[in-house]
Amino acid sequence: MFELVFLGTSASAPSIKRGLSSLIVKHDEYRFMVDCGEGTQRQILRSGVGFKRLNHILLTHGHLDHILGLAGMLSTFMRWEAIEEVNIYGSRHTMDRVSDLINGVVLRGAAAPMPLNLLEIRPGLIFQAKHFSVQAFPVDHRGSSSLGYRFTEKSHRPFLSDAAEQLGVPNGPCRRDLVQGKAITLEDGRVVKPEDVLGKERPGVSLVIVGDVGKPEKLHEHVSGADVMVIEATYLAEDAEMARTFGHSTATEVARLAAESGVGQLILTHLSRRYRDEDVLAEARAIFPETYLAYDFDRFEVRKPGQGD
Amino acid sequence: MFELVFLGTSASAPSIKRGLSSLIVKHDEYRFMVDCGEGTQRQILRSGVGFKRLNHILLTHGHLDHILGLAGMLSTFMRWEAIEEVNIYGSRHTMDRVSDLINGVVLRGAAAPMPLNLLEIRPGLIFQAKHFSVQAFPVDHRGSSSLGYRFTEKSHRPFLSDAAEQLGVPNGPCRRDLVQGKAITLEDGRVVKPEDVLGKERPGVSLVIVGDVGKPEKLHEHVSGADVMVIEATYLAEDAEMARTFGHSTATEVARLAAESGVGQLILTHLSRRYRDEDVLAEARAIFPETYLAYDFDRFEVRKPGQGD
Repeated sequence: MFELVFLGTSASAPSIKRGLSSLIVKHDEYRFMVDCGEGTQRQILRSGVGFKRLNHILLTHGHLDHILGLAGMLSTFMRWEAIEEVNIYGSRHTMDRVSDLINGVVLRGAAAPMPLNLLEIRPGLIFQAKHFSVQAFPVDHRGSSSLGYRFTEKSHRPFLSDAAEQLGVPNGPCRRDLVQGKAITLEDGRVVKPEDVLGKERPGVSLVIVGDVGKPEKLHEHVSGADVMVIEATYLAEDAEMARTFGHSTATEVARLAAESGVGQLILTHLSRRYRDEDVLAEARAIFPETYLAYDFDRFEVRKPGQGD
Repeated sequence: MFELVFLGTSASAPSIKRGLSSLIVKHDEYRFMVDCGEGTQRQILRSGVGFKRLNHILLTHGHLDHILGLAGMLSTFMRWEAIEEVNIYGSRHTMDRVSDLINGVVLRGAAAPMPLNLLEIRPGLIFQAKHFSVQAFPVDHRGSSSLGYRFTEKSHRPFLSDAAEQLGVPNGPCRRDLVQGKAITLEDGRVVKPEDVLGKERPGVSLVIVGDVGKPEKLHEHVSGADVMVIEATYLAEDAEMARTFGHSTATEVARLAAESGVGQLILTHLSRRYRDEDVLAEARAIFPETYLAYDFDRFEVRKPGQGD
């Protein structure tokens, strides 16, 4: 299961209640930060998430409101926090800007005290763990070579302890073999096959995160069927022209994308102080009722529809 | 009268309750920001001070915890706020770093939409207004060519409205002439001299702001007689060795400086989350009772001792 922790949910300028763009995706022992706007290091403290294991930072694009916080956060990591390694991922265009910030302003020729990897990535698979993978896909935002990210949990067949018990399968290596799809032979000569002790295959959940985007209608194939989609909604439909000018989306447009792509839940972020929250939410819900607005420090668990705790 | 508004009061890493270094000095229509750590643009919003007339930014030194906020704040100024001009002042060493940040990361070859002046200054007079002046003085902090700033109000003789009334001095230009030291002749031929309507000369207040400092004992001549001194107190005396290593001061050292320099009130800032506030305050007050701790969004009026509202 993925958990989302929103650190900053404002559009390009912060407001009294919203910090600049950043969120964290947790899965088991993994932590991925997506974007790192100014002030993120302090938002982490305020959120209670902690700096531990913040080894992977995915950037949607290189605009300053999404990357400036790297400078202060990395400075703090370097001085005070025990971070064993930091990997920063983004398109070439994004990483050019990140390099100007980190090499030109933070390091200035000094060596980082821990491995610090600036990783240029292209659309496709970028991270593979045992139980999930992360893929990047292209996003259109003012020629900034932006990327969106899709987190996909592997499907799995739950181990049925009761069935194993009844069949007399002992704890330990035998059970591991069965989970990994191998038949075993018990001491009394009986053979137990994986299908005897594994339940019906359960599909893993999927989570899509899109940063700033000028043409959300182009994203159908990449966000299709996601259980949760996090995406910007910087403007209301009444200001669609401004949205076009600045390469952003309206609440209407992203709600339509969610509705047409079989998304489970829609979470709106990158919210402008120009509007009242309730107006943004109402506009999106009129098209896609399963819409929520992100607030700083909100936490969401990504589940299949109808799947309780 | 000067008013201080603290925007960020933390040492090099922020805490849940303290943002990174920045404060504002107000005098009549003037606003001076001193230092601009990460997150300052949002602290301005939270403080209620507003962006208006924030034309002068004085930097004590170029370490990142004192300058990173310039990038986000100037980005916001450039897009949204009607700031007619920004002047940033600091030593050559400081301005080298500011240039890397502003030219290398924010502007990247683009022109700023408003006059944006990066001003290399040396110790001495740096700003002269009608009623006050600002002087920079050298400060020792890990070879960073740091500067402290002294704001000095001119002495003035208050206009005695009651006396003018009794003498029959009409409102308008006559009164202005008297304030400016010129005698006037009334319609009935009587001559009124300035000394008839001006009270005893009142000395102006003075305010000293010191950023990070490794050898506060060298500052006597520069802070001498200040009505208020704002200065760092990153460490307690028990960690004096660490203070030396990192070029910082202890609460004891800066309290002693205040006591020996005839300072009126001492305000401590750049406070570390390593200590409890009450311990820092107690250590300083044992030496200099007129000590206060700065908290984010605190406001202080700079007055002569015993001068009420």
